[in-house]
Amino acid sequence: EVSFDPKEHQHLRYNPLRDTWVLVSAHRMKRPWAGQVEKPPEEHIPRHDSRNPLCPGNTRANGEVNPDYESTFLFENDFPALQPDAPDPGSDQHPLFQSKAARGVCKVMCFHPWSDVTLPLMNKQEVVKVINKWAELVEELGITYPWVQIFENKGAMMGCSNPHPHCQVWASNFLPNEPALSDRCQRAYYQKHGEPLLLQYAKQEAEKKERVVVESSDWLVVVPYWATWPYQTLLLPRQHVLRINDLTTEEREGLADIMKRLLTKYDNLFDISFPYSMGWHGAPTGPNLKEDNSHWQLHAHYYPPLLRSATVKKFMVGYEMLAQEQRDLTPEQAAEKLRNLPEEHYKTREN
Amino acid sequence: EVSFDPKEHQHLRYNPLRDTWVLVSAHRMKRPWAGQVEKPPEEHIPRHDSRNPLCPGNTRANGEVNPDYESTFLFENDFPALQPDAPDPGSDQHPLFQSKAARGVCKVMCFHPWSDVTLPLMNKQEVVKVINKWAELVEELGITYPWVQIFENKGAMMGCSNPHPHCQVWASNFLPNEPALSDRCQRAYYQKHGEPLLLQYAKQEAEKKERVVVESSDWLVVVPYWATWPYQTLLLPRQHVLRINDLTTEEREGLADIMKRLLTKYDNLFDISFPYSMGWHGAPTGPNLKEDNSHWQLHAHYYPPLLRSATVKKFMVGYEMLAQEQRDLTPEQAAEKLRNLPEEHYKTREN
Ligand SMILES: O=P(O)(O)O[C@H]1O[C@H](CO)[C@@H](O)[C@H](O)[C@H]1O
Ligand SMILES: O=P(O)(O)O[C@H]1O[C@H](CO)[C@@H](O)[C@H](O)[C@H]1O
Repeated sequence: EVSFDPKEHQHLRYNPLRDTWVLVSAHRMKRPWAGQVEKPPEEHIPRHDSRNPLCPGNTRANGEVNPDYESTFLFENDFPALQPDAPDPGSDQHPLFQSKAARGVCKVMCFHPWSDVTLPLMNKQEVVKVINKWAELVEELGITYPWVQIFENKGAMMGCSNPHPHCQVWASNFLPNEPALSDRCQRAYYQKHGEPLLLQYAKQEAEKKERVVVESSDWLVVVPYWATWPYQTLLLPRQHVLRINDLTTEEREGLADIMKRLLTKYDNLFDISFPYSMGWHGAPTGPNLKEDNSHWQLHAHYYPPLLRSATVKKFMVGYEMLAQEQRDLTPEQAAEKLRNLPEEHYKTREN
Repeated sequence: EVSFDPKEHQHLRYNPLRDTWVLVSAHRMKRPWAGQVEKPPEEHIPRHDSRNPLCPGNTRANGEVNPDYESTFLFENDFPALQPDAPDPGSDQHPLFQSKAARGVCKVMCFHPWSDVTLPLMNKQEVVKVINKWAELVEELGITYPWVQIFENKGAMMGCSNPHPHCQVWASNFLPNEPALSDRCQRAYYQKHGEPLLLQYAKQEAEKKERVVVESSDWLVVVPYWATWPYQTLLLPRQHVLRINDLTTEEREGLADIMKRLLTKYDNLFDISFPYSMGWHGAPTGPNLKEDNSHWQLHAHYYPPLLRSATVKKFMVGYEMLAQEQRDLTPEQAAEKLRNLPEEHYKTREN
């Protein structure tokens, strides 16, 4: 009998936040890659580009002129997927043709006046300002909207059409699929085990160590046991925190610090500005503010597409779309690789 | 009060096969696209390439020599994600660290000896041979495995690393996430309504017409009411059929015909060999062969990535990964566009 080695033997792992399984087939990294390669990210971006609608002082698609902002800058998305006043589709009564009204707002937030910086290259106080703005947005939009999704698409590979550092905030009158599923899973776990799922998970991972990427007294970053994307990470507070606007000043400073450390490692993995989509999940808001949400724990997901190099990504295609997600290296291998990378950014080392 | 127009007003639609919702924001097509463009698919592929491991007579990575095959050709994937003999990971008892054994086989099937043809360019009898082989595989592998996933990744954009026309078959000792979810949804619908979900759906769509792309006496292709990918389609039999190996000779001929018609329209949309991932879902097999699976209806999903042109795809990124899938044109608009395209392939028209 051969004994089980996760790096050699495919197996399934359970994702308790989504109630799904992932197929881990780490031996697949051995196959050669003859498929599509991506364009590496543009490394030389001008600090200010007069044609870039996100830069200070420039005019956007709708004719509005950006102020000469010096820190973060927030504006309404000029092509919003969610608008506050869409009429109700009414309801075709047939169960196979169900529709519902969707209302909301979409905002864009620039992180910094310069186009040639990213979060890991900004200083800590500049990142704290971004976090404070995120907290403000959840506070304000959360008064009415049940869900406020903060997310960042970084890099052309992730459909980001503007190199200026920015994120988006889409608030909706409905709880979208992913947070609805996460809510259900966290609630069931709490009812069964009497402790929030992600609080227990952080404790376990902090002890086990093998999937930890970076940690501090307040925060923990791991490649989760059930990660699907090759270098996916989960950013968790070590205390019980429901929403980003509940973070104390110290916790925000600590968050800025751990984000800079994680994102520096990401950039150092292939010596490029690392593409990803990331976003925050916290307890639902709006009408849910009055409910007991003890089962929730604030967290951020990072989903980076790259697998082998700066130009070879993981394709989540046929089998993944039709059957189940599959990964080509173990989460422990990914964590070890990231953990061992320097915490000094390759761009500042060069100079 | 403005009256509701699905092309102008964002709304949610329910996917009864996955118990999820999709955000339809068709007004988003108006925004300009300044983001990443893809390389258009290679249009001039040699009929036979002595370096291509899928061509007749050539040697594969493992040293095996392909026969001089004249129709379809099946072989074991040289880098399989599933192997028949992986040891059991055992079980860490903690509910947050659950793993399970995964066993199976991965096969590759070439559709044709020539590299420069695709399904729509093959003749009907050649396509029937592909269908017969699919049926054989489900029959044989289904004796032991509960799930036999047939899928095709077509085009470099979909992670396909070889232009030779082929598909893959991954059979597993577990029911993967997607079919497990679909099984649950179809079962619940059947219990409530006394008729298979997709049989009722096909009848409704055949009457409504607005989402139909192509149809025949035995088959129907629609852009489903709940489509997430821009030009996603669902291929359905009009009779109740559990599995692909249950299709009669006539139904297989009809299937070859409707596939050729659909795929010709796909290629004609942007005058390129249209990339997609597709796959078959039928009633589970293995131990499930002894169960009542009346709630199931055989169907194929086509998931094509392109949105605006041969080089601009839909990015399912930040909001989609973290919150909910969002589409930029209505399923009715997509269906109308496909329906109105000629049924003669642009390549045969040229000559
Ligand atoms: O066709 P290949 O090379 O086996 O691989 C392709 O399809 C697989 C199944 O969908 C994916 O897991 C891979 O990421 C993709 O590149
Ligand atoms: O940043 P944009 O241009 O609004 O758009 C990008 O992010 C959106 C939200 O994830 C996606 O729906 C788009 O497909 C993507 O291109």
